[in-house]
Amino acid sequence: MNDPVTGAVCCDQLIKMALAEDITSEDVSTNAIIKGYVRGNVQLICKQEGVVCGLGVFARTFELLDPATGVKLFAADGDGVRRGQLLGEVTGDIRVLLSGERTALNFLQRMSGIATYTRRVADLLKGSKTRLLDTRKTTPNMRIFEKYAVRVGGGYNHRYNLSDGILLKDNHIGAAGSVKRAVELAREYAPFVRKIEVEVENLDMCREAVEAGADIIMLDNMSPADMKRAVEMIGGRALTECSGNVTAENIQNIIDTGVDYVSSGALTHSAPILDLSLKNLRPVEER
Amino acid sequence: MNDPVTGAVCCDQLIKMALAEDITSEDVSTNAIIKGYVRGNVQLICKQEGVVCGLGVFARTFELLDPATGVKLFAADGDGVRRGQLLGEVTGDIRVLLSGERTALNFLQRMSGIATYTRRVADLLKGSKTRLLDTRKTTPNMRIFEKYAVRVGGGYNHRYNLSDGILLKDNHIGAAGSVKRAVELAREYAPFVRKIEVEVENLDMCREAVEAGADIIMLDNMSPADMKRAVEMIGGRALTECSGNVTAENIQNIIDTGVDYVSSGALTHSAPILDLSLKNLRPVEER
Amino acid sequence: MNDPVTGAVCCDQLIKMALAEDITSEDVSTNAIIKGYVRGNVQLICKQEGVVCGLGVFARTFELLDPATGVKLFAADGDGVRRGQLLGEVTGDIRVLLSGERTALNFLQRMSGIATYTRRVADLLKGSKTRLLDTRKTTPNMRIFEKYAVRVGGGYNHRYNLSDGILLKDNHIGAAGSVKRAVELAREYAPFVRKIEVEVENLDMCREAVEAGADIIMLDNMSPADMKRAVEMIGGRALTECSGNVTAENIQNIIDTGVDYVSSGALTHSAPILDLSLKNLRPVEER
Amino acid sequence: MNDPVTGAVCCDQLIKMALAEDITSEDVSTNAIIKGYVRGNVQLICKQEGVVCGLGVFARTFELLDPATGVKLFAADGDGVRRGQLLGEVTGDIRVLLSGERTALNFLQRMSGIATYTRRVADLLKGSKTRLLDTRKTTPNMRIFEKYAVRVGGGYNHRYNLSDGILLKDNHIGAAGSVKRAVELAREYAPFVRKIEVEVENLDMCREAVEAGADIIMLDNMSPADMKRAVEMIGGRALTECSGNVTAENIQNIIDTGVDYVSSGALTHSAPILDLSLKNLRPVEER
Amino acid sequence: MNDPVTGAVCCDQLIKMALAEDITSEDVSTNAIIKGYVRGNVQLICKQEGVVCGLGVFARTFELLDPATGVKLFAADGDGVRRGQLLGEVTGDIRVLLSGERTALNFLQRMSGIATYTRRVADLLKGSKTRLLDTRKTTPNMRIFEKYAVRVGGGYNHRYNLSDGILLKDNHIGAAGSVKRAVELAREYAPFVRKIEVEVENLDMCREAVEAGADIIMLDNMSPADMKRAVEMIGGRALTECSGNVTAENIQNIIDTGVDYVSSGALTHSAPILDLSLKNLRPVEER
Amino acid sequence: MNDPVTGAVCCDQLIKMALAEDITSEDVSTNAIIKGYVRGNVQLICKQEGVVCGLGVFARTFELLDPATGVKLFAADGDGVRRGQLLGEVTGDIRVLLSGERTALNFLQRMSGIATYTRRVADLLKGSKTRLLDTRKTTPNMRIFEKYAVRVGGGYNHRYNLSDGILLKDNHIGAAGSVKRAVELAREYAPFVRKIEVEVENLDMCREAVEAGADIIMLDNMSPADMKRAVEMIGGRALTECSGNVTAENIQNIIDTGVDYVSSGALTHSAPILDLSLKNLRPVEER
Repeated sequence: MNDPVTGAVCCDQLIKMALAEDITSEDVSTNAIIKGYVRGNVQLICKQEGVVCGLGVFARTFELLDPATGVKLFAADGDGVRRGQLLGEVTGDIRVLLSGERTALNFLQRMSGIATYTRRVADLLKGSKTRLLDTRKTTPNMRIFEKYAVRVGGGYNHRYNLSDGILLKDNHIGAAGSVKRAVELAREYAPFVRKIEVEVENLDMCREAVEAGADIIMLDNMSPADMKRAVEMIGGRALTECSGNVTAENIQNIIDTGVDYVSSGALTHSAPILDLSLKNLRPVEER
Repeated sequence: MNDPVTGAVCCDQLIKMALAEDITSEDVSTNAIIKGYVRGNVQLICKQEGVVCGLGVFARTFELLDPATGVKLFAADGDGVRRGQLLGEVTGDIRVLLSGERTALNFLQRMSGIATYTRRVADLLKGSKTRLLDTRKTTPNMRIFEKYAVRVGGGYNHRYNLSDGILLKDNHIGAAGSVKRAVELAREYAPFVRKIEVEVENLDMCREAVEAGADIIMLDNMSPADMKRAVEMIGGRALTECSGNVTAENIQNIIDTGVDYVSSGALTHSAPILDLSLKNLRPVEER
Repeated sequence: MNDPVTGAVCCDQLIKMALAEDITSEDVSTNAIIKGYVRGNVQLICKQEGVVCGLGVFARTFELLDPATGVKLFAADGDGVRRGQLLGEVTGDIRVLLSGERTALNFLQRMSGIATYTRRVADLLKGSKTRLLDTRKTTPNMRIFEKYAVRVGGGYNHRYNLSDGILLKDNHIGAAGSVKRAVELAREYAPFVRKIEVEVENLDMCREAVEAGADIIMLDNMSPADMKRAVEMIGGRALTECSGNVTAENIQNIIDTGVDYVSSGALTHSAPILDLSLKNLRPVEER
Repeated sequence: MNDPVTGAVCCDQLIKMALAEDITSEDVSTNAIIKGYVRGNVQLICKQEGVVCGLGVFARTFELLDPATGVKLFAADGDGVRRGQLLGEVTGDIRVLLSGERTALNFLQRMSGIATYTRRVADLLKGSKTRLLDTRKTTPNMRIFEKYAVRVGGGYNHRYNLSDGILLKDNHIGAAGSVKRAVELAREYAPFVRKIEVEVENLDMCREAVEAGADIIMLDNMSPADMKRAVEMIGGRALTECSGNVTAENIQNIIDTGVDYVSSGALTHSAPILDLSLKNLRPVEER
Repeated sequence: MNDPVTGAVCCDQLIKMALAEDITSEDVSTNAIIKGYVRGNVQLICKQEGVVCGLGVFARTFELLDPATGVKLFAADGDGVRRGQLLGEVTGDIRVLLSGERTALNFLQRMSGIATYTRRVADLLKGSKTRLLDTRKTTPNMRIFEKYAVRVGGGYNHRYNLSDGILLKDNHIGAAGSVKRAVELAREYAPFVRKIEVEVENLDMCREAVEAGADIIMLDNMSPADMKRAVEMIGGRALTECSGNVTAENIQNIIDTGVDYVSSGALTHSAPILDLSLKNLRPVEER
Repeated sequence: MNDPVTGAVCCDQLIKMALAEDITSEDVSTNAIIKGYVRGNVQLICKQEGVVCGLGVFARTFELLDPATGVKLFAADGDGVRRGQLLGEVTGDIRVLLSGERTALNFLQRMSGIATYTRRVADLLKGSKTRLLDTRKTTPNMRIFEKYAVRVGGGYNHRYNLSDGILLKDNHIGAAGSVKRAVELAREYAPFVRKIEVEVENLDMCREAVEAGADIIMLDNMSPADMKRAVEMIGGRALTECSGNVTAENIQNIIDTGVDYVSSGALTHSAPILDLSLKNLRPVEER
């Protein structure tokens, strides 16, 4: 997202589609009033304390409308920001500034919202070895932006999608006949660069998974006490993950289990946005 | 969304893209284990009280993977649902059920989350004449789904995008020179089927907007007392809208101003999801 | 169309598709003869009196083939032009000039044809309060260009499509049960920024529509005398539109009815092109 | 167009785009009134004498909205039709009938207009050996439909685009140095299945083209007398084409020159539509 | 590829594009001769001994042209086939059979060619523990088909693309400063489900990679003797891969090194096709 | 391919798709190590003797990732190249160089492989009048690149696809009833710029085809002796083509038949790649 390759290959098309969603034919209000090129400048102001994320996408939105637009940034993705802070300035055709505003902010606010929420949760885990993971519970067609925001907020990414990670759940295990057989089949079939993760629901399954050579074991719906026992039994032979809501109240319990990772769908599916806005639009002299 | 036209023209492409986001090459876990067609059935279970929305999109996700998939629904968009309730069943190739699950739920959970949140806010306005509106602060490339969810939740839609509604803001008014001139220019330029909305910040601008013949006046950043005065001054010559957070605390103040509409970006940008899941996958006999 | 936003978001993709329609693999004739870069210049000449429209699209066609192409324009959209007039010059790789010519002209000629025809009809209405409207009877995948050309020719745009305007026809009214009920349903369902238009066929329906609060009333297939009576009965409580062929012969009748708008499908579906051509291609020195 | 291959590969995507142009989010009028599935039937009625063309595209438009829609046709592409004639019936979800009407007719009317106009011109050539050709002066993104309509109207197709036919114009000849050299270069470069056409402006160039082995010679801007002399000089060694307006007045002159083909851009760029409409929508019993 | 999900999400669009590459406007030869629907049947015959692969893609090509086409298969992907063997039959509109033939065969022949070549190489490794891997040296826009063909032929897939596997090469190691630092950075940054592979050129780098905890070590350009030493030194602490041409001559050397995997770009970039053809087209009675 | 028009209209989209195939989300390895812009340079080195082809596509791949990338070329398409030769240099953001490498080489190696193989076969025909043709047996979605490579290698292109050339095969002839009738139907139906090719299997059919006025006759599965007789019988009244494997052994036989063209599917479906690589990546000073 801050590298040109991801932008060109994975993001531009989605940004263009978002612009087309907001502009079927033209920005009628703007075109009714402003009949030709006027150079202007507008400021990106933070309205709420949090972590900013998506500044590259914000800038790219305006550039895709008009490559002549200039975006100057005074903050970087991952920076803590505070209410009233000036984060950037956009300079160019006033019509571009007005027509691109909402789409650019819709990306920036959501990505910043996720980064802010992730930072808050990740901070609860500070000092422990347990790391915070995202999930595939992302907004449709926003995954590339949302998983980046998790990283910027201090979380780690789980698999990107169904094709680049193996997670054997109860249904897979049932169909295979046993944990052991499921892991064997996965190891035979999947690209050998994949780690194999198995979801287990009790200590017996967990033991079976370790013995089958699972690379990662997900402890699903187990009590903290059982999770602790599971982690001990695994004894470093596999990485461990548990999923669930991380709150200030339950955080110590999770850390105490000794799991390597805790995953949270809420990072991407329920984070509120961070409030940001464009202000102080004014005409400026031509360079 | 519950009509075939919107589905075919506006939604299918976005659902396909969301599936492609989750499946680059194949569902490796499933294909490793399940080597051919097995007919199965899975249940859609509600895990949280709320308003369900997006059942058509949920069903369509599986049908786009395989038209032979059958989806039976026991609830309809807009129904209040409770924890544990069986909402539907999906029957077909087990590989399709497994591979489509996450994408189908990602749509359904988000849309249900918005409908649930909207219902809660709309209920606060019950008994008053003030109606709840959404905004353009939607998730990029999700607007068609999110604005529908607002309607299902009991809200009303503001303009869909920049092309199908006029909203003259301070920058437009500044560029035009006066409220009066801005309204004239908009009326001259825009398709005559558009209503013209003007954003005003004080009573003087408000008076000017009414006299210029604005169809809708948006009261921006005004105190409740001023809004009330503005509504009285307008005297039904234009529709009125105010924007802002609607909470249990401030709701009476808003209603008391007598505005026709209150708009809330939070409906679409900050509603948490409604938790739903697919459970009890099992093989079934061929028909 | 003369703003960068509409160009980038709504037009570029259609221009690229039109180029791909004309170039499956390569311009064989040109590549057979011209083996490498030669800088050239060609003139855009008007061959028929009329109104030029689409110069931005014309220029963009060449720029999309090669951003290094330079287009200098000596006229602007909406200008009256005469046979033999030099309207512009294109400078760049001769292969680009040759390969882009037909597509660029196909856009420009059609848009100019519509603007020319619209100007002619609009001129018949001069001095009256009646305004000329387009319809949705546009060429498939050309609406963005054709509705702009109507505006440039002095016409006004009706709704852009089925999503951004309400027009309740006999079938809608029949399904609703009455004009009154249809208007109520539309007001309840549609975004509140939409005006509601009702098509009526006689004075009784017209009265019902006014009383139901229709914003616009379309007088369909009524005699001039009935239309006049309808307009009087409406008495400014709604805008009025009639549709039909506007000719030099019937124009006074239409004006005499006092309708606010007259719409004409012919503007977009039956205007002949304006003849324009590229001439005098010659090599030029490198800058 | 009446074969499934062209429909699936070349037309469906363009029809879908045309539907999306007319439906950004939904058909608001229809959805406001009709809340669920109602089965209906509507008739396709001819309103003007002419040649119908595009019935397959008309039908496909509805099927792409909803595959369950049934279209019964009582005429075939190329049939002469008269005012009031019933050409077909569409049966299905009333919402689909209402929402697809305009797009389906926009295709059908334009294609029928071109077929009608082409038939009229082709009839003028009846009894002579001279055949009527179209050009590349088609509406952007409509070529597949328009060239088919020319054929249905009794015309013949010139090359489809820049990639599948060679036409050496003055600029190519100038760049090559001579007609002879241009033909040599084209023969060396182009796929050997292409015929090579040369545009000539006088008898000398014409002689040079014949001697260079051109397959087709286009007589450009020559007087009827010169054209006649050119045709005699060519003496069957190449096919001959002239371009220009074919009218009742000049037709005998053209025929008398003895050219094999006369091409006319007007067939596709300036034919008015044929008026057709959907009438008598009514609910019908479920099958 | 033999599951419906991969077909719908990853393959259909590429097959449609390949059809559009072969059919710009129509199949002129076929449409010139066959004026309407005729039901026919054609046989898929093997013309060369090998391994067939891509039968699902072959069938899908015809179904995408016309869903009414029926494809009966008498062999399955991975089957050894011999000259003259009947592999399948396609029944439907003769125009569909003729127009789809080349595209369907182009897929099938290439995929079968890769499977055949892979099988031959994989057989050389039989009895050893060393497995055959593909690479990212695939034909642009054919990877989904080619990697599947490798699997069908008995090879294994390396990473699918740059996003779903880590391979740290000399440039990455150089930029990081050391093997150790590169592995640390990768482990910190990449999704934790990724294995980390490091490319090493000598025994020192190899030792460093093992100690840094690399999951896979690629032995690049090392002599068999050095590779053997490297494998011994690694001692099972990481998987090992070498790349290079596998031939009957060098195969024992490779096996003797004890590497786990040998990768070969030639599987996908240089396998000749397997010759297959459609024969015996004949009209058949309607069902 | 070396003209800007073909690049912009026909190639860019395919190159972008190939990049997206290799980069789903990001280049994880590169982004893990290189955290920001570093300017670098890398060399394109030939590793095998042959004919280079596709340098423009190679360069364009990097430019599409980042327009700021600079590509300097020291060879041109069609040049004979030798092992170790420096063919070009790419300079720009090191992340772009690393992420684009594989895709750029996949194009270049395949195109060069085809050009190399074609040159070898074409050289066998040197001194004779017989020319070497390609076929439609190309890799799906690679035809634009592969047919160009054939030309660069010294071959000639047959028709591009089903729409731009007529080839009447046994099935067409059977359906028409006779060779004569098939040619008549094709001449009546097809654009008059198309040459008509007929495939014949014996001397009788050949005679019939000549008499029917076929422009090109394809001698299918005939013995050299029969082909020779056929060519003599045709006596220059049509072009002649035979298809089949051209090898050092059979080449004299083919030349001796006197056919004008010999076509070979192997040029595009079975040529191995030419080995090329990017080497010596190093950081460079900012300009």
